[in-house]
Amino acid sequence: MAALPSDRLGFLLSFRGELTGARIRAALGVAGLHPRNAMTLMQLAPGAMSQRDLAAAMEVDPSQLVAILNELEADGLAERRRDPADRRRHIVKITEAGAAALGRVDAAVGEAERELFGGLTEAEQTLLRGLLDRVVVNPADHECGE
Amino acid sequence: MAALPSDRLGFLLSFRGELTGARIRAALGVAGLHPRNAMTLMQLAPGAMSQRDLAAAMEVDPSQLVAILNELEADGLAERRRDPADRRRHIVKITEAGAAALGRVDAAVGEAERELFGGLTEAEQTLLRGLLDRVVVNPADHECGE
Repeated sequence: MAALPSDRLGFLLSFRGELTGARIRAALGVAGLHPRNAMTLMQLAPGAMSQRDLAAAMEVDPSQLVAILNELEADGLAERRRDPADRRRHIVKITEAGAAALGRVDAAVGEAERELFGGLTEAEQTLLRGLLDRVVVNPADHECGE
Repeated sequence: MAALPSDRLGFLLSFRGELTGARIRAALGVAGLHPRNAMTLMQLAPGAMSQRDLAAAMEVDPSQLVAILNELEADGLAERRRDPADRRRHIVKITEAGAAALGRVDAAVGEAERELFGGLTEAEQTLLRGLLDRVVVNPADHECGE
């Protein structure tokens, strides 16, 4: 006998993930940012990064990252400059306006997460994170292109 | 200080869900079915249902369901007939060819799930399911249109 879709863990994770993504994207939109751009600012928050490291951390192609950075730079939220130590490398950093935008993103996403995960205790949220981390989504992707 | 995207449970669930969905869709494609159609067959496997109950179980609009059923019927995988007890109601049932297609779906999805969740014990998979069930994805959606 075949299982109902709702009985299958793969469907459940896919659906919950899809609706969670929609809720998060709505929160980012409220904060005035495209999801990819918001995630790039989040990645840059701890400090400046080389464009190559940023692409690797974001898991995007260098060409996709260039498009994102063009938008962020046009909006005054991030800036690129050449590394003085190695002129072929580009260093990306968040601007003050970018940090302010990131503050709005953080507040909006935090609110969405409280809504989504408010039914779980902190310990259960940690457990859920740990289990999700062990789902094998792309076994071939662990080879690093660097 | 803003969190990295990978530190946020909302992003993690969204990304894992998205990639899981892609893996499941690939499995359904191998089985030769569109995801929506495959899920409809899964829903019909235990027995015939009224079209209204099927739409409610699938969480789709009646008009979307009609489009799905048109395809399934054209492929000989499901059939609709009027309920003899209430001529306004339509009853939907899976055909023998539909049951055979569902067997292929089940095998393909089962393989995808073993790949996705093979790193978790049975008990951990049950735990993950329980936690995902308690994520609040659409608080307004619990009003029932019936």
